Amino acid sequence: MQQPTKPTNVDPSVWSQLLDATPVQARHLIREGAYHAPTSGLCPGFAQANLIVLPKEQAYDFLLFAQRNPKPCPLLEVTDVGQRTTKLCATDCDIATDFPRYRIYEYGKLVAEVDNVVDYWRDDLVSFVIGCSFSFESELIEAGIEMRHNTQGRNVSMYLTNVDCIPAGSMSGKMVMSMRPLSPNQVVKAVQISGAIPKVHGAPMHIGDPAAIGVADIAHPEFGDPVDIHPGEVPVFWACGVTPQSVVMNSKPPFAITHAPGCMLITDTKNVDLKG
Amino acid sequence: MQQPTKPTNVDPSVWSQLLDATPVQARHLIREGAYHAPTSGLCPGFAQANLIVLPKEQAYDFLLFAQRNPKPCPLLEVTDVGQRTTKLCATDCDIATDFPRYRIYEYGKLVAEVDNVVDYWRDDLVSFVIGCSFSFESELIEAGIEMRHNTQGRNVSMYLTNVDCIPAGSMSGKMVMSMRPLSPNQVVKAVQISGAIPKVHGAPMHIGDPAAIGVADIAHPEFGDPVDIHPGEVPVFWACGVTPQSVVMNSKPPFAITHAPGCMLITDTKNVDLKG
Repeated sequence: MQQPTKPTNVDPSVWSQLLDATPVQARHLIREGAYHAPTSGLCPGFAQANLIVLPKEQAYDFLLFAQRNPKPCPLLEVTDVGQRTTKLCATDCDIATDFPRYRIYEYGKLVAEVDNVVDYWRDDLVSFVIGCSFSFESELIEAGIEMRHNTQGRNVSMYLTNVDCIPAGSMSGKMVMSMRPLSPNQVVKAVQISGAIPKVHGAPMHIGDPAAIGVADIAHPEFGDPVDIHPGEVPVFWACGVTPQSVVMNSKPPFAITHAPGCMLITDTKNVDLKG
Repeated sequence: MQQPTKPTNVDPSVWSQLLDATPVQARHLIREGAYHAPTSGLCPGFAQANLIVLPKEQAYDFLLFAQRNPKPCPLLEVTDVGQRTTKLCATDCDIATDFPRYRIYEYGKLVAEVDNVVDYWRDDLVSFVIGCSFSFESELIEAGIEMRHNTQGRNVSMYLTNVDCIPAGSMSGKMVMSMRPLSPNQVVKAVQISGAIPKVHGAPMHIGDPAAIGVADIAHPEFGDPVDIHPGEVPVFWACGVTPQSVVMNSKPPFAITHAPGCMLITDTKNVDLKG
């Protein structure tokens, strides 16, 4: 797999430590405050994860929402109320410190972006650790399928579609989908490879016509960056892990913590264990 | 697939209607009180489902338990609080009347067995509709693998193992597994076929040694009936949908409703849609 590129604001010695780190070593470096940048490409083979933290008061609705919408909301772990540590997807893992960067929301509004959430932690919080498309992208790359956003050094394109998620209590919203342009002869392979990883988004939601899912302008994604689509390429859309964040923000719970975009948790779970 | 055998207490004209019924027609017959017997073999190709109904007070713990233990607790649908109707796995479906028979539990004790639960319904109840091994058994049979319990006209053998489920709040317990004896040359095929249906128990939990999972006496299952194991056959164990019922009973919530063993809900969901 291609070596990731050092983010500009990162100390070279920290970066070289990270490139050789196991997941637990990477979490320790991040916990110590040495790294606050995106985690794409770090610890290849290990699943990275999105985060949403909600008060117990909203946790049932969100847990039910995830149960009803497993493709955009693949739960790797839900922590016990008030616990900062994970038990299943990683050990020696502190939810409040081991993501490089966090966002704090109040009633759906972003109120702060911080390096750890120790001072924001409360005894009534439940953490939802959610799978991320890095898990299937690495398999697609292994199979020789170009990830255009990687080639172009950009974030993947993500669109707010007109596809309704199945609501649950106070939680509702449209599905966000990520798009990767593929040559027609790669589409079947990409469906099969991603479809074999149902625990992290699974097979695509849509192939071919952006308008059919309410995407009016493919050149202007709502999240991430636009990427080049070459003549003859087919846009392929997958359910995206930004959906739960978008839904939580749409549903305006009094308090929520999320990771900052791209700044994921590096878990001990191997991508291969997310199959079947 | 083999035609099911008419239960002895069933009216022949009701039975012949059931054999030709669509799922919704079968539910109507059951709703009208015409049928109170096991549903095995009815509406082939459509998923049947187990039921646990709990007060909202216990619903978060059980939903989290199911999230942490998807192999024994594959959720087909979780209803909104107080709603008797399903929306996803079937339409025109009343949870309180469309199972042939129900059990009422108080603090883990069986207090009644009834034909419908209309008089027991409360506004704070949440229904968990849980997948059932009939869904993968029909695929195994199609592939030419004998289901010994069917051949012998018995219920499948189910064992309370020493394998702990991952607890969630007030819910905890050991995993129940069903066992099917297979000839060695069928084991790989059975793993592949059931593994391709992760939404209903998926691949086996254990192959070969009953003692390794705490099964002391294969001839005396805790649930269901013993079946013959021929010389050279291998016992293959799958996570069983009786686990959640057993866990709920172990955890002793103040009130719970379940279906009676074998008396399942016939859903509109095709088994084939439970793949991937």
